[in-house]
This record gives sequence, structure tokens and C-alpha cells, in this order.
Amino acid sequence: MVVSVAIVMGSKSDWDTMKLAAEQLTELGVPFSKQVISAHRMPDEMMDFADKARDKGLKVIIAGAGGAAHLPGMIAAKTTLPVIGVPIKTRTLNGLDSLLSIVQMPAGVPVATVAIGSAGARNAALLAASILSVTDTALTQRLLEFRQTQHQSSVESSEQLVE
Amino acid sequence: MVVSVAIVMGSKSDWDTMKLAAEQLTELGVPFSKQVISAHRMPDEMMDFADKARDKGLKVIIAGAGGAAHLPGMIAAKTTLPVIGVPIKTRTLNGLDSLLSIVQMPAGVPVATVAIGSAGARNAALLAASILSVTDTALTQRLLEFRQTQHQSSVESSEQLVE
Amino acid sequence: MVVSVAIVMGSKSDWDTMKLAAEQLTELGVPFSKQVISAHRMPDEMMDFADKARDKGLKVIIAGAGGAAHLPGMIAAKTTLPVIGVPIKTRTLNGLDSLLSIVQMPAGVPVATVAIGSAGARNAALLAASILSVTDTALTQRLLEFRQTQHQSSVESSEQLVE
Amino acid sequence: MVVSVAIVMGSKSDWDTMKLAAEQLTELGVPFSKQVISAHRMPDEMMDFADKARDKGLKVIIAGAGGAAHLPGMIAAKTTLPVIGVPIKTRTLNGLDSLLSIVQMPAGVPVATVAIGSAGARNAALLAASILSVTDTALTQRLLEFRQTQHQSSVESSEQLVE
Amino acid sequence: MVVSVAIVMGSKSDWDTMKLAAEQLTELGVPFSKQVISAHRMPDEMMDFADKARDKGLKVIIAGAGGAAHLPGMIAAKTTLPVIGVPIKTRTLNGLDSLLSIVQMPAGVPVATVAIGSAGARNAALLAASILSVTDTALTQRLLEFRQTQHQSSVESSEQLVE
Amino acid sequence: MVVSVAIVMGSKSDWDTMKLAAEQLTELGVPFSKQVISAHRMPDEMMDFADKARDKGLKVIIAGAGGAAHLPGMIAAKTTLPVIGVPIKTRTLNGLDSLLSIVQMPAGVPVATVAIGSAGARNAALLAASILSVTDTALTQRLLEFRQTQHQSSVESSEQLVE
Amino acid sequence: MVVSVAIVMGSKSDWDTMKLAAEQLTELGVPFSKQVISAHRMPDEMMDFADKARDKGLKVIIAGAGGAAHLPGMIAAKTTLPVIGVPIKTRTLNGLDSLLSIVQMPAGVPVATVAIGSAGARNAALLAASILSVTDTALTQRLLEFRQTQHQSSVESSEQLVE
Amino acid sequence: MVVSVAIVMGSKSDWDTMKLAAEQLTELGVPFSKQVISAHRMPDEMMDFADKARDKGLKVIIAGAGGAAHLPGMIAAKTTLPVIGVPIKTRTLNGLDSLLSIVQMPAGVPVATVAIGSAGARNAALLAASILSVTDTALTQRLLEFRQTQHQSSVESSEQLVE
Repeated sequence: MVVSVAIVMGSKSDWDTMKLAAEQLTELGVPFSKQVISAHRMPDEMMDFADKARDKGLKVIIAGAGGAAHLPGMIAAKTTLPVIGVPIKTRTLNGLDSLLSIVQMPAGVPVATVAIGSAGARNAALLAASILSVTDTALTQRLLEFRQTQHQSSVESSEQLVE
Repeated sequence: MVVSVAIVMGSKSDWDTMKLAAEQLTELGVPFSKQVISAHRMPDEMMDFADKARDKGLKVIIAGAGGAAHLPGMIAAKTTLPVIGVPIKTRTLNGLDSLLSIVQMPAGVPVATVAIGSAGARNAALLAASILSVTDTALTQRLLEFRQTQHQSSVESSEQLVE
Repeated sequence: MVVSVAIVMGSKSDWDTMKLAAEQLTELGVPFSKQVISAHRMPDEMMDFADKARDKGLKVIIAGAGGAAHLPGMIAAKTTLPVIGVPIKTRTLNGLDSLLSIVQMPAGVPVATVAIGSAGARNAALLAASILSVTDTALTQRLLEFRQTQHQSSVESSEQLVE
Repeated sequence: MVVSVAIVMGSKSDWDTMKLAAEQLTELGVPFSKQVISAHRMPDEMMDFADKARDKGLKVIIAGAGGAAHLPGMIAAKTTLPVIGVPIKTRTLNGLDSLLSIVQMPAGVPVATVAIGSAGARNAALLAASILSVTDTALTQRLLEFRQTQHQSSVESSEQLVE
Repeated sequence: MVVSVAIVMGSKSDWDTMKLAAEQLTELGVPFSKQVISAHRMPDEMMDFADKARDKGLKVIIAGAGGAAHLPGMIAAKTTLPVIGVPIKTRTLNGLDSLLSIVQMPAGVPVATVAIGSAGARNAALLAASILSVTDTALTQRLLEFRQTQHQSSVESSEQLVE
Repeated sequence: MVVSVAIVMGSKSDWDTMKLAAEQLTELGVPFSKQVISAHRMPDEMMDFADKARDKGLKVIIAGAGGAAHLPGMIAAKTTLPVIGVPIKTRTLNGLDSLLSIVQMPAGVPVATVAIGSAGARNAALLAASILSVTDTALTQRLLEFRQTQHQSSVESSEQLVE
Repeated sequence: MVVSVAIVMGSKSDWDTMKLAAEQLTELGVPFSKQVISAHRMPDEMMDFADKARDKGLKVIIAGAGGAAHLPGMIAAKTTLPVIGVPIKTRTLNGLDSLLSIVQMPAGVPVATVAIGSAGARNAALLAASILSVTDTALTQRLLEFRQTQHQSSVESSEQLVE
Repeated sequence: MVVSVAIVMGSKSDWDTMKLAAEQLTELGVPFSKQVISAHRMPDEMMDFADKARDKGLKVIIAGAGGAAHLPGMIAAKTTLPVIGVPIKTRTLNGLDSLLSIVQMPAGVPVATVAIGSAGARNAALLAASILSVTDTALTQRLLEFRQTQHQSSVESSEQLVE
């Protein structure tokens, strides 16, 4: 099965957050790879990874990073594939630093930024699936089913509340 | 020509920012539509627009909004197409309110958020093109050319600086 | 007994906060309904709820939501009833995101915003009662008694401090 | 004609913002009074005003203030009428100080807070009308008409954009 | 012994912080009173307290409050005595709301603001003593001794670190 | 006439703000000196100034500084006189940096902090007068008159508004 | 003359700020080069520049960037030379985004961050000179003279103020 | 062995953070001293320390401080040696106050600021080593080895993730 999504993250500790992206992709049947690529500790590997991403058959890259979070933006600088950035929550500034470091990209090189932390990681997977679904009707169908399940779950939580 | 990208915005005054997205799409040869759909003043039209977006052949939606910016997230709630949110700069909080209202979506419904203001609008177009390029090699080629031109322009600006 | 206040919230986990609104309404003898209506997972139900609110006899709506909190503003977009928004505290940005997403509404569609978290939930109930009291002298009386009890409790806490 | 809404503000310079509330009330046919009552320079008048508000026949109070904005909260402490607080934009912190000073009320005394600045002032009037509309069907009708006009205006601005 | 300093606070829970002010005054031999006066739950007592403060022989007032912290500013509005405001740390915004509500007073009515939380409470006492010391040489002497002890303690902590 | 208040500031450009303190002291008949003492460019003079302040007969020091504003806190570290800090508005962070650098002093060395910018400068003078008034009944009287004039001015501005 | 300091910046528009670094280095007699190297538009040149910096004889690198400012941190990832980061002021968030993107580097790769904007640019030059002065007594002497001139200028500005 | 780096901190409790700087220097074989020098409790010692730093043979000073963090900037005002400032995380504002108090220095006196908390402390040591390495090829070599070890550790963490 061809891997269409790569999940990369700046440090192994980011996996606690990024595994939610992995779970969501698995749930949607989207094959993916995962690895640690630190922008600051593995800059050459990062450049190389981004450079070859499209040729390897990747279609979307999900990159999680915290603090002065340069990984998503630098990957985006080296590929024209869509790059989704997940701001990891930080101990000092709660991820506001990660968010601004990722989202405030200059004109010319976009990063699709999602929410800080776990919600963002899960949504990164859904956004990747959404991007792939543009030309994949089977995946579109699975996304619709995910939405219906989610809807149903909310409806039921309301019923439980009233009881 | 089939319109694959829709640019929507919460108010006509957002056009000053969002026209940069339009210009960038035009430059890349990506056909698009544009309209004002206020989440708060035209909620039914917004719901209807999002509901029918995929069936109309749209592939990506770019939504700009400011302040309590609900437009991108509400459209995302009604479609599984990728939705790109552009936080419009505001007079009081400079767009920090717009940014947080757009990017901090709960798990389940993602919005691909870009930078506040003009840089974000331009990058929204580039991100849309990037998404479309996943299965469009001609567009991939145009994106690469855009990157090369942009690179060349930076190199030249450096040469001018040194002179 | 006619239900005049509806408490709605974006997710069942918001109930930890919103139950303070319920307790306060109960204490003041104001009948209310409660339900989960997620703006992003149940958008159609949300629109339908807001659309029919006035006809159902509702007089005030209390809506709690966190993060990119769109529920209060979207309900306000669909009804002319007073809508009170309660910003739920969030794990990453402590509810500052919820607050700005709720309070920074554009001209034309107001949301009556209260404090982040528990204090806000309790005050949402008091504000709802205050709104109803405009034409309900019995409720005005109960509000005055609440204020006197509260005043007395503060006075006594001061006496305990001095001892 | 009985005055049902009072617009008060901390300083005469706040009128630039608060006049939008006055204009909106006028447009909706809601009679109102207006005055400067500084919490810090006229504390006795403020207490007296709040104390007698309900007996004078007032039904809603709109209070605008900037910086360490104590006016809305202190009036709310002295009356059980609904009090709407408008955070005035400030030169140094853009009204974030005003917003937090108004919205973060402790449990027991609510202030219905709206957006910073002009949008907030206009929405304060709409919220006041919305509160009065609970038992005023003619005003409800005028509010609905306002919404329709507003909706129509947004629709037309979209048409102009497309042309 | 004449009480020259009054410690007041918005709620009994503020005592956890404000007791540090009490301890520091005790250590410096400055007689003080303490009480809960909630700006929002006991507004009349607050006004009365401030009104009579100078006549009762008070020379400095220390007021602690959290959130929309109106107590220090409202007392300052009713007396020309120096008022020291202590911003209490809050659960949601960590006391940034308290700080801005206290420090951003408009021209005409000052509040001497100290740091958020415990450090602020202790410093409020030291500032009060400093104010009293202007015409009290014995207290000036005790303040100097406090500073020397504090200095010595820092020097010793450095020696312990090196060992 | 004995100078009891010193106005110091970090740079000559701060005078635009600090002159409001000077004007207010003049209006209240409080004699004062003024000088530039940069914490970072004149550290020895700063230390010397603070060291000798009490012996020179000074009773209160007003210190204005912007950015990493160290002047008020360092002077406070070298004297037991009351030190009032005025956070100067900055071009980049609007004075939030100045405010936090001045107000967040550690336990042991207080700075009486006032609002950012002009309002703060004026209030610094009023606070200094208030401190001096503790044992100066003539000044107390002038402060009361200032308050009355200020009150009257607010009352009149309200009358003008209504007309 | 050997160039020991390189000034690089993300875009030509940063020169308005960074030229102050250039002026300061010129004034101190420190030879330097200057160029535009955009992290996002010229990533390969950036990597190459950083890779060869030490071998070319450079001793300190000054890098200015705004928004999601990745240039200083990425250069630091590729060289063990000291890298000084200058956060450029931005139109939307005033440079707070630039500051956090530069200063919040993860453990392992430091960037010496200075103030936002012009003051930071000038200080970057002084810091570079300070680093070079560690083993350059002539430069140490020039730095001392700079400090004395600066001190004298502050003293004189105080004298002008008093006149 | 000549001590070339001094680690100073405002209070003994800062050692929890600053010991990471000490560990890193030890690992790199850079001799250092450590002491508590409180800017506010030991101002004379601070001035004296900074004054004599260069003559004692020190080449870099690392200063950690929290809240209104004046230590790094005041030391920088008294020496032309490079000063590295470490913002200590605070209980109320998480170290944002420390960061702004340290980094926002006025033009003329730079402080090389690193990240808030532990990452910053470790990086302060690496930055100091980097500064020393400019003329120390053995240390340059050890820095390169540190980078390689760090790189290897990241690569391995990625391999563990994939397994």
C-alpha cells in the first residue's frame, strides 16, 4: 500500500500529541509513515526529507513542533506539497509560541495550521484525509461516515445529559 | 472552465485582504469564484453554500473573516472539503481574535489556518493550489515555477542590497 | 411550567462548568431546559434550535462553548432572543480563545458575554434571571433576596476573618 | 414616552464610541437617556443612579468604559437590572484592559459584555432591544426587520463584489 | 495603639494571599486592621469604608482583589489616602485580568499597584511601611533593618550554593 | 522651598509623558526636581541618586521608564523611600513590556506602579501628593479641591452631552 | 580586512531595521558583510551559508527576521558560531510573533535574542562587538569609549531637561 | 584552571533552572563559577561584580532572573563583556514577564536572551561555549561533538518511534 501521508515531529516527546493524528489516519484507512525529524538537530535530514517528499509518492505532510517551531515552515520551504503544522503545547507559554511560530509564515510559503495540542493533531489527520478526498471518492465516503458517527455521538451525549 | 476554488469572506471590507488570494490564484491559473457570505448576517446562505460545495465541483474553500470569525469553522462543519481560514486583521486586537477564533477548532472539524492579514490571504491561494497540485501535474509545475521566480526575486534583492 | 431559559453547550464535557448555571437557575426558581448542541458536529440541529427558539416560548438562551467557540454567535445569528455566551476554560489557552471567539462579534449580532469558566456560568443564570425580571416582579424579588443573602454571606466571612 | 434604556459612560470622550449605541436605539425606536457618570470621578452619583434605576422605570443599562473599567460592574453591583458593558478601545492596550475589567466579574454580579469599541456599542443597543423584545412584540418585529435589512445589505455587497 | 493601615480584600479566599501582607506588617510593627469588603457584594459598605477612612485615622489602605478587580480603584475614588492594590492570581487568566483592572486607572484617581499574588501582598505591606516611614524615623530604621536582614539572607543563600 | 518629590526618567524622550507628572505636581503646589537618569547608561549615577535620596530630604521618587524598564526597581532596591513607577508606552509592545518590568517586583522591594503612559504619569503625581498628604493637612485640602474640580468637570461634561 | 560579522535578513524590507546594526558596526570599526537570505525562499542558500560560515572566517552572525522567523534558528542549527537573532516588528502582532519564534529555541541550539525592532538591531551589533572583544583589546577599548560617549550623552540630556 | 564563565542568579530558587547551565558547561569542559546575586537585595554586590568581571578574567556572564528580572540588564550596563540572560519561569505569568524584562533592552546595552526556563538555561551554556569557541579550536571541536551526539540521539529516537 502506498504511503500518502507522512507524520513528522521535532522530538520523540511530541509523539504523545502526534499519535492522535496517527490513530485518526488509521481509523480512516489512510496509510502513513512516522518519524522524528528535528529541524534544529537534524537539519540536513529535514531538508532531504522535504526535497524528496513528492518523488516518494507522498501527498500530504503533517509536521508537529513546539516552541520556536520551525519544522513545518522549513519543510514547506522545500516542497510544494501541502504541509500541515501542529503546534505542540509547551510548558512555559502553553503553545502560543508554537502557534505563532507556525502560522505567521510570510507570503509565498504556506503552512496549514491547526489547533494547539491534541485537538490539532487529530484535526491534522482529518485535514490530510480531506485533502486526499478531493480525488478519492472512497475516502470521501469514509470521511462522511466519520462525520455521521461524530454527529451521532454528540446527539447521544445530549440525550445522556437530559436523562 | 470548472471553478475549483471558492473565495468567501464575512464582509465586503475583507476584500482588501482577500483580493490577494484572488490575484495569486489568477497568477497560478486556478479558476475561482468569490462572494460575501456573512456567517452572522447570512447564516442560511452559508449553510447552503457549504452543503452544496462538493456537489458543485468545488475542491477547496478559502474563507476570510475577522473578530469572532466563525465563517471558516462553520463551513468546515458542513462540508468534508478542505477549508482554508484567513484571519482578517482587526482594529482593536490586530487579528489575534480572528486567529484564535479560526485556528482553535475542536477535534473533529479542521480548518487549515494561515497567517493574519495579507500574507495569509496570499498563502491561502498557494495552499489551495498546493492541495490541487496533489493530482494535477501541470499545476505542480506552475507552483514550482512560482517558487523559482520567488527565489530569484529574493536573490536579486540581496544583490541590490549589497550594491 | 413553561421553560423560559435554554442552556446549551458545545460538548458534554462543558457540563462541569454549565451545571453551575443550572444550579443557579434552579435556586432562583427559573425553569430551564439543557442540551448538548455542538456548532461543529450538529450544525443543522443548532440552526433549527435557534430558528424555533422564540416560537417555543424561550426567552433567553445560555450557550457555553470553548476554543473556537462558535455556538453562542451562530445561535445569535439565527434568533433575536437575547443570547448569553459562557467562555469555557481551555487546556491550552485557559479560555482566552473562547472569550475572544464569543465576545468579539461584529456589529449587527450581539452576544452577551460573561466571565470565563464557573463564575461566568453562574453569572449567565443571574443575567438570564435579570433579563426575565424586567417584566416579572416575583423574580425581581427573588433576585433581590439572592443579593441580600450574598451580601450577608460576605459580611459574615469578614467577621470570621477578624475573629 | 417612557425611557427604558440608559446609556452611561465614564468620560465624554467615550461618546465617540457610545453614540453608535444611541444611533442604533434611535433606529429601532427605543427611547433612551444618555449621561457621563465616571465611576472614579463621580462615585456617589454612580451609586445613586444605579440605586434608583429600576424605580425610575429603566429596564436595561448600557455602560461604556475604558482602561480599568469599573463603571459597568459597579452599577451591576447596585441594581438587579440587566447591565450591558461596552469596553472602550484604549490607546495603550487597545481595549484588552477594558474588556478584562468588564467581563471577568466574580460569581454573583453579572455584566453582559460586548465587543471592544464601535461594534460593541452598536451591539449593546441591539442586545438591549433584544432584552426588551422578550415582552414587546412590536419591538421584536422591528428587530426582525433590522435583521432582514442587514441580511439584504450583505447579499447586495456580495453582488457588488462579483460584478 | 492607633491602626494606621487597613487591609481589605474582595473575598475571604483572598486571605491566602493577603495574609502575607499582614505577616509583613506585623514583622515591621505596623498596626493594621483586616476585613472582607466585596466591591460587588458589599458596595455600600465599601463606599462608607472609603469615605470615613481618613477620619478614622487610617493613613494607607491595602486592597486585594481578583478578576474584574474593582475594589482598589473604587476605594481610591472615595478617599485621597494612598491606596495600594494587590492583584490576586486567578484560575483562568493567572491574574493578568486582576493586574490590568487595578493598574490601568484613568488620570485623576491613582492606585499604587504591586505584583500579582504573594510577592505583591508582601510588597504592599513594605510599600505601606515605606509611605509611613516618610515621617516616622523609628519605622525607617526598622525598614532599613529589614533590608539588611534580607540582604544578609541573600548573601548566605549564595554561600550555600557555592558549597 | 524644600524639594520633596524627584521625577526621574530613563531617557529624555520620556519627558513627553513625564511632564504630565510635573504639571500635576505644580498644580498641587508640590515642589519637585526632574532629571534623566538612565539605569543602563548611567548606572552609577542611579545608584548614587537612590543612595542619597532620603538624606537629601526627598520623600517620594517618581521614576518613568520604558521597555526593559529597570529604573524604578533599581532605585527601590537602594532606598526605603516610596518609589512610584510609570511604565512608558513603547513602539513595539505598547508598554506591556514596561508594565511587567516595573510591576512584577519580587517580594522584598516594592514599586508603586501606575497606568501605562500619560494617565500613569499624572496619577504618579497624585499618588505622590497623596503620600505626602498623610502628614500634611494643607496638601490634603488641595487634593480634596482637586477632586472636587475634577468631579465638577465630569458633571459638566455630562450636561454638555445631554444638551 | 577580514570580515568577522555577517548581517543576514529574511527580506529586503528588513533592511530598514537591520541597517542600524550596520551603522553601529561601522561606528565601532567592525568589518561586516550583509545579504538577504530568506529561510523560506532561499533555504538551500541559507543552509550553505551557515555550513561554510566558520570556514569563511566569520565569528558572529546577526540574523534579522519577522513573523514566523526561522532564519536565526535554522542558521544556528547549522553552525556552532554564535548567532544573534533580531525580531523584526510586524504589522499584525508588532513583532511578538517574531520574538517568540526566535527566542523559544529548544535545548541544544541557542540563538542570542535581542529586543524587537531598531533597538534590537543596534544592540545586535553591540553584542557582536562584545563577543569579539573577548579576545580583542582594541575593540574592548572602542566599546568602552562607546559606553562613555553614550553615558555623556545621557548626562547632557538631563542637563538640557533641567534648563 | 581559569574560570571564564560566571553563572549568577537572582535567588537560590533559580538554581533548579540554572543548574542545567552548570551541567552543560561541565559537560563541555568549560570552567565556571556560580553565585546568587540579587539585583534588588544585593545591588551593591551586583554593581561590584559587574565592574570587576573583565578584570577577573571572566569572558561571558550568564544571568538568570524571574519576574521584573533586572539582573542581566543591570550587569550588562556595567560591563562590556557579553551577558546572557535566562528568563526564569514564574508562577503567575509563566515567565513572559521575565522574558520581556530581559529582552526588551534599550539601544546601547544588549543582553543575549535565551528561551524561558530549562531549555534557556541549557542554551545559555551552549551560547557561552559558542562565544568562547570563536578563538578556542579545542572547544569548537567539543561543540561539534556535542552537536553530533545530539544529532545521533535524535536519529535514534526516530528509529525507536518507528519500531
